Amino acid sequence: MQTVVVKFGGPMLATTEKIVQVAKKVIKEQGRGINLVVVVSSMTPIRQNLRQFAAEITHEPSKRDMDALIATGAQLTSALLAIAIQEHGGKAVSLVGWQAGIQTNEKYGNARIDFVDNKRIEKHFELGEIVVVSGFQGITETDNISTLGKGGSETSAVALAVALNAERVDIYSSVEGIYTADPQRVESATKLSEISYDEMLEFSNLGTKILHPRAVELAKKYNMPIVVRSAKEDVEGTLIKGDVDMEKNLLVRGVAYESDIIRLTIGYDSYETASLAEVFSVLAENDINVDIIVQAVIDGIKPTISFTISKVEFAEALRVLESSKLSLGFSFADFEVGLAKVSIIGSAMASNPGVAARMFARLGREHIPVKMVSTSEIKVSVVVPQEDMVYAANALHEEFNIAMKEVPAS
Amino acid sequence: MQTVVVKFGGPMLATTEKIVQVAKKVIKEQGRGINLVVVVSSMTPIRQNLRQFAAEITHEPSKRDMDALIATGAQLTSALLAIAIQEHGGKAVSLVGWQAGIQTNEKYGNARIDFVDNKRIEKHFELGEIVVVSGFQGITETDNISTLGKGGSETSAVALAVALNAERVDIYSSVEGIYTADPQRVESATKLSEISYDEMLEFSNLGTKILHPRAVELAKKYNMPIVVRSAKEDVEGTLIKGDVDMEKNLLVRGVAYESDIIRLTIGYDSYETASLAEVFSVLAENDINVDIIVQAVIDGIKPTISFTISKVEFAEALRVLESSKLSLGFSFADFEVGLAKVSIIGSAMASNPGVAARMFARLGREHIPVKMVSTSEIKVSVVVPQEDMVYAANALHEEFNIAMKEVPAS
Repeated sequence: MQTVVVKFGGPMLATTEKIVQVAKKVIKEQGRGINLVVVVSSMTPIRQNLRQFAAEITHEPSKRDMDALIATGAQLTSALLAIAIQEHGGKAVSLVGWQAGIQTNEKYGNARIDFVDNKRIEKHFELGEIVVVSGFQGITETDNISTLGKGGSETSAVALAVALNAERVDIYSSVEGIYTADPQRVESATKLSEISYDEMLEFSNLGTKILHPRAVELAKKYNMPIVVRSAKEDVEGTLIKGDVDMEKNLLVRGVAYESDIIRLTIGYDSYETASLAEVFSVLAENDINVDIIVQAVIDGIKPTISFTISKVEFAEALRVLESSKLSLGFSFADFEVGLAKVSIIGSAMASNPGVAARMFARLGREHIPVKMVSTSEIKVSVVVPQEDMVYAANALHEEFNIAMKEVPAS
Repeated sequence: MQTVVVKFGGPMLATTEKIVQVAKKVIKEQGRGINLVVVVSSMTPIRQNLRQFAAEITHEPSKRDMDALIATGAQLTSALLAIAIQEHGGKAVSLVGWQAGIQTNEKYGNARIDFVDNKRIEKHFELGEIVVVSGFQGITETDNISTLGKGGSETSAVALAVALNAERVDIYSSVEGIYTADPQRVESATKLSEISYDEMLEFSNLGTKILHPRAVELAKKYNMPIVVRSAKEDVEGTLIKGDVDMEKNLLVRGVAYESDIIRLTIGYDSYETASLAEVFSVLAENDINVDIIVQAVIDGIKPTISFTISKVEFAEALRVLESSKLSLGFSFADFEVGLAKVSIIGSAMASNPGVAARMFARLGREHIPVKMVSTSEIKVSVVVPQEDMVYAANALHEEFNIAMKEVPAS
């Protein structure tokens, strides 16, 4: 019998009423004659309450005990969903992370999955039960409860699917799939029927919040298909898989953007005092995510380095740089706020060097200043003023004719 | 090093502010140079929320998944308390039931502890950590989460104390100890410095809510001393132990009462149709607790049986009896509401047959009608009209001169 792992996020489980809706949906899914694992996150209001409780006691809780605290969230949802499935005529069992065999390392708050022991879930399959698993959590070798950090629930789902040799992972979401651009802001955006892991990774990394890159990376590693689909509408979603042959001819697959970017620049008097690697080590140690990095030289001898961070991490980044100024040896630091990042993505780009040039030309014609540039094999990102972000996304979506190629006009 | 297990109930952990108070208290306790285990219940509002969630989905949740749900409550408290202890300078680790080695049978919702594996807690002691354990829960042989039912947190504490060969269990409570009678209603009530397990069992069974009889029974079995003490005031509590030699001369140790009692009577036409044992089997199967039972014969041939139940179980008891009327074969049933039970307790009573007579005589002089009587080796209970309950308790407290004997006038 085929196995499918499905995942529902916090907003889809925010109330008991919504949990009952999910219960009915998964009973119907299992009715198609499959083994079904349902991975759930914490109900959104519960997660907030748990963090609030801890914050009332301290701003630096121990990560180990914080994980024991946070893990109660998804345990609560999985128990409630199992109860709801039973109430509506299905057979179900709820399992917390350790019961589902999710073994992790000891990095509390951001643990990595080492392996999944599928024995217990297989037994519940034999009983015809829908197995509801608390996502985002596991157990360490020393029998401590761990949580998986950002993207943890989706990563749980992919890891379970791999261990159970599942057919695919269905990620139920508030949107109907992956779009060529944000349909809220780019009028001609269309839903993709398929997308490759690499392209999806770029979409995820570039601010599309639907699926965390960590889960996509794991799926890519084991070639596990993921479908992003709507929890509300019964329409086809977007299949994420290894190769997307049918659409290889499409140069640019989509446009992504991310707002509230800040550019930080730090400069050194000379190469002797510059320790560029150390800057990023210090930032990484303080969990500040740096995105685009550009290095330049002023006056032929004064090296500067610019990088982008998100607005929410700005204050912390400044604090870290200030307190490390002496050891890092830089002579000045400044910043620019009110920026955004716009990216074009497509795996065919690698073999087509003209894509970036065409992107810059179009932005030039639209009088949109490009502040920073970053490229990879399958994407080009530019940093532009925040107020130009949506306009730039629309222009690029049109420039590369994305919508037209994806869905023929009907 | 001596080991002490302490237990805090839900009302003492109802807010993060209260949790911080408990944290400071246990840090001080451990500072006396002991190994310390702290058993905690669910924060009172959380427990209510959890049950409410399930009730919104169904009125008959599966007990197994309900246990997974309810267990999150104490897990949350134990994690928060460990975090609070660390924040205030102590070393602590939180453990859920299975991590603390509490193995139970599979009777979900009302599981019994089979044994406690103390290995992990001993390891944390070696690290100098205060071990905060989620009470009320354990793990079954098949690795399912179970909860212990009524009195579960106190029972966890006693079981852990036995397994760790602890010096004693401290039950922190909203009261300062066990009183000769309810100090709110009996003016001359005084705190007992010591009380025997058997006497405490009677107090617990007779409506004193401080300590569940199940925990007392376990403590009695292993001769584990329990101290009931105030969470607020640093005053001596009441020590519950095997023998209370010093006060053996005291005939009656205390007066207890319980309000909102209902008497149910069912009658049969003849002995042939009567199946008295079956009545109580049916009630027990439906989890209805029957207290005092009195059997009588009317007209020489018609047997009747009267028993008391608490008001909250009245509707359910009627429903059960009604639906089993045919199979039970009784001819009529009636009931009397507005009753209360008043009891005198004392282990010296066994060797003094005049105590009950003196109790009835005094109640007679006070014109308090006695509706039912029940006696044991160490207590006599009478059922009286609810409105006479407090007056009867005061009269009996005076009659047996309890306050005078316990604490000499100073």
